[in-house]
Amino acid sequence: MTAEPLSDFSRLCVHTITTKGWELEEAVEHYAEAGVSGITVWRQWLEGRNPAGVGQRIRAAGLEVVSLCRGGFYPALEEKSREEAVEDNKRAIEDAAALGSPLVVLVCGAVPGQSLVESRKQITDGIAATLPLAESLGVKLAIEPLHPMYADDRSAINSLATANDVCDQLNHPLVGIAFDVYHLWWDPDLEEQTRRTAEANRLFAYHVCDWMTPTTDLLNDRGLMGEGCIDLRGIRALVEKNGFGGMIEVEVFSNRWWEKPTAEFLEAIQQSYLNHT
Amino acid sequence: MTAEPLSDFSRLCVHTITTKGWELEEAVEHYAEAGVSGITVWRQWLEGRNPAGVGQRIRAAGLEVVSLCRGGFYPALEEKSREEAVEDNKRAIEDAAALGSPLVVLVCGAVPGQSLVESRKQITDGIAATLPLAESLGVKLAIEPLHPMYADDRSAINSLATANDVCDQLNHPLVGIAFDVYHLWWDPDLEEQTRRTAEANRLFAYHVCDWMTPTTDLLNDRGLMGEGCIDLRGIRALVEKNGFGGMIEVEVFSNRWWEKPTAEFLEAIQQSYLNHT
Repeated sequence: MTAEPLSDFSRLCVHTITTKGWELEEAVEHYAEAGVSGITVWRQWLEGRNPAGVGQRIRAAGLEVVSLCRGGFYPALEEKSREEAVEDNKRAIEDAAALGSPLVVLVCGAVPGQSLVESRKQITDGIAATLPLAESLGVKLAIEPLHPMYADDRSAINSLATANDVCDQLNHPLVGIAFDVYHLWWDPDLEEQTRRTAEANRLFAYHVCDWMTPTTDLLNDRGLMGEGCIDLRGIRALVEKNGFGGMIEVEVFSNRWWEKPTAEFLEAIQQSYLNHT
Repeated sequence: MTAEPLSDFSRLCVHTITTKGWELEEAVEHYAEAGVSGITVWRQWLEGRNPAGVGQRIRAAGLEVVSLCRGGFYPALEEKSREEAVEDNKRAIEDAAALGSPLVVLVCGAVPGQSLVESRKQITDGIAATLPLAESLGVKLAIEPLHPMYADDRSAINSLATANDVCDQLNHPLVGIAFDVYHLWWDPDLEEQTRRTAEANRLFAYHVCDWMTPTTDLLNDRGLMGEGCIDLRGIRALVEKNGFGGMIEVEVFSNRWWEKPTAEFLEAIQQSYLNHT
């Protein structure tokens, strides 16, 4: 199963962290110029800015705000820290609403040495505590299952199955999943769990990049699409077969690419989007 | 659930690669002196040596040969390479028999860009092709599921469930599983799949180390037991509850530890074995 090549940029969204050499205003200008259609704003790019104003600027440039990245990090040993995490997530939801972002992406968190079962309970409770606000503002929350190599301190949700389990438990139309090929490509249950995700109407976002061989850094050695081993068109065919037609978000953390001029990187992103995604 | 501390070294086995500053003869001498009970020999330590002679030396020193590490790496794009891999695995099985090792550990292999499903088929076929020899020599083969971060080029078998599936398919009493906490600790299905492994009489080996936060290298930044976040006594309780009473094999790849004097490292291994494993 393989998807048809993408022939235009109508579904191309870029994360501000991907082009992290650019301030928000530069990113908006360059994306719009290049014909990129969507932007996912990382929270650092809102610092010192008015989210509503940022949203207006983005839309005025002809771009769509796809999501705000990222809330989460609910688990903590101390109750006080967990309460602070909930407050921080409420701010993220408020910022998303002001920005005009329909979605907050959640990197759910984990505490080294605390059992993953306990962390998942704290994640579930943390999301639940923000749901009334999310509901009142109409903001969706997308759990992003992270690769098992991040199970120590970034997320206790390490497969699509576990993300679906947590969603089932919360059982709310605003709670869904951000599907990132980097985290999920290896999963033997991907087909079945993608179907489960789609049937529950919770396939909220789709992130792409590639897996490098060798990977020299656990965080910042992602590949541009086509540079690695992920079957990008096979996985896109899978999500599209299950009804996903939304934005394709390029989220590449790469020291190697970040060393190059950002404009050159954006050009490479667009080429690899057409040729390999 | 947590296991009682280990109070002696009767189940302590060390992998020669863990103390890689030592040649085989040095490792045997130092392990025996320190009261270590078992040794898992990596194939590089047999180079230029007679496996039968090595086995005699090990047993004369009062140590048990626990396994030969490692066969595997069956998948390849070319049929010729797959045939060579089978031949190499046959040599490993013959060396294990000569050494007096009851077991060969298999790191099964993967090919970047080849689907994991295809690689698993090639792995299954590769193991099957060596089974008559393993049978005639009475050598067991243990599939070691590897962490999903090695799914690109080291193993297409990335969970205990998948390892069990492949074992079910091969359905042979000599084919089982090497359970390594580093690769499996994060798995939400660990309890269920450990039970499945034990019920099928295929829990052949148990490897320990720890997961560092942060992990700075995908291959050689493992922790000594107690340095990281793995619930070592919880997982040992789980395998023991399921009937495992075999050797506890210390397999630590660590540039950090390898920089220190090897004797100091062995001492630290023994301390962490008693205090944290």
